[in-house]
Amino acid sequence: MTDIKAVARELVVANRILSREDVVDAYGHVSVRHPDNPNRFLIATSIAPELVEETDIVELDLDCAPIKDDGRPLYHERFIHGAIYQARPDVHAVVHAHSEDVLPFAISTAPLRPVIHSGSFMGTKVPVWDIADKFGTGTNMLVTNIDQGRDLAKALGSDNVALMRGHGFAAAARSLIEAVRISVYTPRNARALTKAVMLGGEIKPLHDGEIAARNAGYKPYSLETRRAWRYWAHKAGCAHLVDDHAVDHQHKPWGT
Amino acid sequence: MTDIKAVARELVVANRILSREDVVDAYGHVSVRHPDNPNRFLIATSIAPELVEETDIVELDLDCAPIKDDGRPLYHERFIHGAIYQARPDVHAVVHAHSEDVLPFAISTAPLRPVIHSGSFMGTKVPVWDIADKFGTGTNMLVTNIDQGRDLAKALGSDNVALMRGHGFAAAARSLIEAVRISVYTPRNARALTKAVMLGGEIKPLHDGEIAARNAGYKPYSLETRRAWRYWAHKAGCAHLVDDHAVDHQHKPWGT
Amino acid sequence: MTDIKAVARELVVANRILSREDVVDAYGHVSVRHPDNPNRFLIATSIAPELVEETDIVELDLDCAPIKDDGRPLYHERFIHGAIYQARPDVHAVVHAHSEDVLPFAISTAPLRPVIHSGSFMGTKVPVWDIADKFGTGTNMLVTNIDQGRDLAKALGSDNVALMRGHGFAAAARSLIEAVRISVYTPRNARALTKAVMLGGEIKPLHDGEIAARNAGYKPYSLETRRAWRYWAHKAGCAHLVDDHAVDHQHKPWGT
Amino acid sequence: MTDIKAVARELVVANRILSREDVVDAYGHVSVRHPDNPNRFLIATSIAPELVEETDIVELDLDCAPIKDDGRPLYHERFIHGAIYQARPDVHAVVHAHSEDVLPFAISTAPLRPVIHSGSFMGTKVPVWDIADKFGTGTNMLVTNIDQGRDLAKALGSDNVALMRGHGFAAAARSLIEAVRISVYTPRNARALTKAVMLGGEIKPLHDGEIAARNAGYKPYSLETRRAWRYWAHKAGCAHLVDDHAVDHQHKPWGT
Repeated sequence: MTDIKAVARELVVANRILSREDVVDAYGHVSVRHPDNPNRFLIATSIAPELVEETDIVELDLDCAPIKDDGRPLYHERFIHGAIYQARPDVHAVVHAHSEDVLPFAISTAPLRPVIHSGSFMGTKVPVWDIADKFGTGTNMLVTNIDQGRDLAKALGSDNVALMRGHGFAAAARSLIEAVRISVYTPRNARALTKAVMLGGEIKPLHDGEIAARNAGYKPYSLETRRAWRYWAHKAGCAHLVDDHAVDHQHKPWGT
Repeated sequence: MTDIKAVARELVVANRILSREDVVDAYGHVSVRHPDNPNRFLIATSIAPELVEETDIVELDLDCAPIKDDGRPLYHERFIHGAIYQARPDVHAVVHAHSEDVLPFAISTAPLRPVIHSGSFMGTKVPVWDIADKFGTGTNMLVTNIDQGRDLAKALGSDNVALMRGHGFAAAARSLIEAVRISVYTPRNARALTKAVMLGGEIKPLHDGEIAARNAGYKPYSLETRRAWRYWAHKAGCAHLVDDHAVDHQHKPWGT
Repeated sequence: MTDIKAVARELVVANRILSREDVVDAYGHVSVRHPDNPNRFLIATSIAPELVEETDIVELDLDCAPIKDDGRPLYHERFIHGAIYQARPDVHAVVHAHSEDVLPFAISTAPLRPVIHSGSFMGTKVPVWDIADKFGTGTNMLVTNIDQGRDLAKALGSDNVALMRGHGFAAAARSLIEAVRISVYTPRNARALTKAVMLGGEIKPLHDGEIAARNAGYKPYSLETRRAWRYWAHKAGCAHLVDDHAVDHQHKPWGT
Repeated sequence: MTDIKAVARELVVANRILSREDVVDAYGHVSVRHPDNPNRFLIATSIAPELVEETDIVELDLDCAPIKDDGRPLYHERFIHGAIYQARPDVHAVVHAHSEDVLPFAISTAPLRPVIHSGSFMGTKVPVWDIADKFGTGTNMLVTNIDQGRDLAKALGSDNVALMRGHGFAAAARSLIEAVRISVYTPRNARALTKAVMLGGEIKPLHDGEIAARNAGYKPYSLETRRAWRYWAHKAGCAHLVDDHAVDHQHKPWGT
C-alpha cells in the first residue's frame, strides 16, 4: 500500500509549482491517479492552486463523484480529469490550465508544435478540441459533465496535450512530475514559437526522431527530472514538502 | 442597513488587487455604489490604489461632490464613475485604468473582442470613446467634468467595457467583484488576442451564444468567483481583509 | 540656501525608483542641477542605481569635473548630463538609460511618438542621435567626453527625450520628478506602440493640441505627481526617504 | 597558487546571477577553467543553478571526467564545457543555457546579431550549430559526449556565442564575469531585435568598428564590470559572497 499522504503532499507541491510558474491562477487544476486503485484519482476541492493544502485533497471515482462526500465543493471541470483517466490507462496525472501564452494557439488556426527540446514532451501533434463542434455554440465553454469530458478525451486520443478552443489546454502524462513538466514547458515552447513566427524567417521544428528519442529516454524519476522538481518547489516556497521520504516514494512507479 | 465599513474594506481589497495585478499603477481607480443609497458611491481620495486604506474611502454624490467635504483631495477623473452610475442603474461598481496591454487597442483601429472564456465578461462589443470627437483635440485627455463623463457613459451604452482613445478603459459591472474580474481578464484577453494576430492565422472569437451563456450563468458571489477573490487578495497581501463577515455580506446583493 | 541633503535624498529615491521600474539596471544614471548654483549638478559616483546611498552623491561642474575630487570613480557617461545642463538652462534633471523596450526604436527606423496620455511628456518629437554621424563608426558608443555630450545635446535641441542609436535614451526635464516620470512612461508608451503596430491597424497618435494641453497643465509638484512619487518610492522600498520635509522642499522650484 | 575556494565562491555567485536573471532555470550551467591548471575546469554537480553551494563545485578534466570521483552525479551536457576548453586556450569560462528569448533565433532562420551596445560582446557573428547535421535527426538533442561537444566547439570557432538549434546557446569568454555578462545581455539584445523586426522599419545593427572598439576597450575586472557584478549579486541575494578578498583576487587574470 502506498502512503497516500505522501502522494497528497506531492499533489500540493504540484499545485504550488503550477501557480508559481504562472500555468494556473485562481483557476486550473492538477490531479493524480490513485496509486493503488486505478479507478480513483486525487484532486483538490474547489480552491485556487496557490492555496491548496494537504487536507484539501479528496478522492474521486472516474465519473468524478467523491468517494466520501463531506459536502466540500468540487471543481466544475473535474470531468476533464475523470474522462481522460477512463480513456487512457497509461495516464497517471492530468493538468488543466488556461496558461496565457498557450492561448494564442487556442484562438487561432496557427498550429502549436514542438520547436524547443523541452517542448518535445508535448509529442509530435497537439490537437485542438472545440467544444462547439459537438455541443453547439451556446455552452459556457466549461467541461462540466462526463460527456463533454469524454469528447475532449477523444480529441486528445493518444497524444499528451490537447488545446481547448478559446479556453486553455489539458495535459496527460505517465506521472505527476511529467504532467507538471509538460505544463511548464508548453507555454515556453509557445512563447518561443510565437516570437520566431514574428521574426519572419523559416521555422525549424524538432524532427520526429528527436521527439521520439527524447520521450524514449525520459525517466520521470530520473536525477535530471528531480533536479527540476526541487528547483520549482524551492521557487514556489514549498521545498520543505519535498522530503526524502517523498523522493524515495517517487522511485516506485505509481499504478504500474 | 449595510455595514458600510465592510463595504469600504472590500473596496480596499479591490484597490490592492488591481494594483497587484498591474491593472493600475499610481493612477486608476475603483468605486462601488452605496448599497443603501443609489445616489451615492464610495471611492478613495487621491491616493495610489496600492496605498489605499479604509480611512481613505469617502462618499460622493453622483455629480461627484463629497457628501462631507473635509478638504481631502479627490481623483480628477471621478466623473467617469459618477456619470456611469447616473446613466446605468444596473451598475454597482466601476473601474477606470490604463492597463498597459489594453492600450494597443485604444491607440489603433484594431478591435478588441472576447477570444478567451475569461474575457467573455467584456460582452460582445467593446466601444472606443474618443474624447476629441466632442471636446476637440486640445483637451488634456482626462475626464475632469460631468459632461465629459456623460459623453463617455453614452459611448459605453449598455456595454460593460469602453476603451478610451490614447488613455485606457472604463469597466462597469453589477458588483465590485465583477468589475475587478473584468479588469483583470480584459488585459489577459488583449494579450492573447495581440499574440494570436501576430501568429498570422485566422482568429476564432467566442460565439455570441457562448458569451450569453457565460454571462447568464455568472453569479458574482458564487463559490468560483470567491475562489478568485481570495486568491487575488492573498497575492496582494491582504487576505486578512477578506474575512467571514465580508463573505457573508457578499451574499446580499448590494443596492438591488 | 536649499537643504542639499534633502536634494541628495530625493536623488537617491530617484535612483531606486528607476531601478525598481526597470528603467536602469547596473547601468544608467540620473542627475539633478544644484538648486542654488546652476553651474553644478548632483549625481552618484559609479555605482548601480539600486545601490546608491546619500553618501554616494557628489557635485560636478558642467564640464563634469568633481567640485571636490576625493578619488571616487565617476560615471564615464556623466558628459550626457553636463552637456545638457550647459545647453538647456530650463533643464533641472537628466536621466540616461538603456530601457529595454525603448531600444527597438533606437535600432530601427520606426519612429517613437506619443500615443498614450502618460507618454505626452516626451513631447511631439523624439529625435534619434547617432554617435557615428559625427564621431565615426569606430567609437565604443559611449558618451565619454564633453564634445560627444554636446553633440547629443544639440540633437536633443529643445525636446525632452533623445534616443541614442543602438544604446538608449537621454531625458531632460524641469524637475527631478518629471525626469523620472518621463523615464518610466516612455518605455510604457514604446511597449503600447510596438504592440499596436503589430496589430496591423491604423495608429492614432496623440494630437499636438493634447500634448500641448497636458504639458501646459502639468505642475511637477502637484498632488497627482506626488501621488506617483510616493507610490514608486513605496514599490522601491524607500518610502521612508520621502518625508514631509522633502515634500515641503519640493514646493520650492529648484534653481529658478 | 590561487585560492580555489574563492574561485568556487565566485562560481556560486555566477550560478545565482544566471538564475536570478532568467538565463537558466533548473537546467543550464556555468563553468570556469582552473586558474592554476588549464587542463581542468570547475563546475557544479547536477544541481539547479539557483541551489548551487560551494560544496557542490567539483573539478573535471577536459574530457569531463571528475578528478576525484566521489559518486556525485554530473551534468549530462558537461561536454559542452570540456570541448570548448580543449579547442580554445583563450577561453576561461563557459555558459550553456536555454534562455527563452534567444530561442526564437535558434528555431528560425532569422539571424541574431548585435544591435545594442551591451550586445556587442557577442561579437560580429553568432553561428548556429545544428546537432542533426553531423549526428542525425534521431538524437535527444543533448550534447552528451565529447564528440558532440567538439562538433559544437568547431561551429563556435573563434566566436563568443553559438546558438544550438532547438535548444539554446553556448557562450565562451576570457573570464567568468564576461561569460555571465554575455549571457545576460544576449537575451536582452535578442528581445530588442525581435521587437525591432516587428516594428517593420529598417534595422540598424552595430558597426563592426563599434564592436571591435568595445571589445578592445573591455577589461573584465574594470570598475564598470564590477559595478554590474555587485548589482547582479545583490539582486540574486548573494552580495555577501562578493567580498573584498574575491575582488582582489579578480585583479589577477586567471590562467594566463
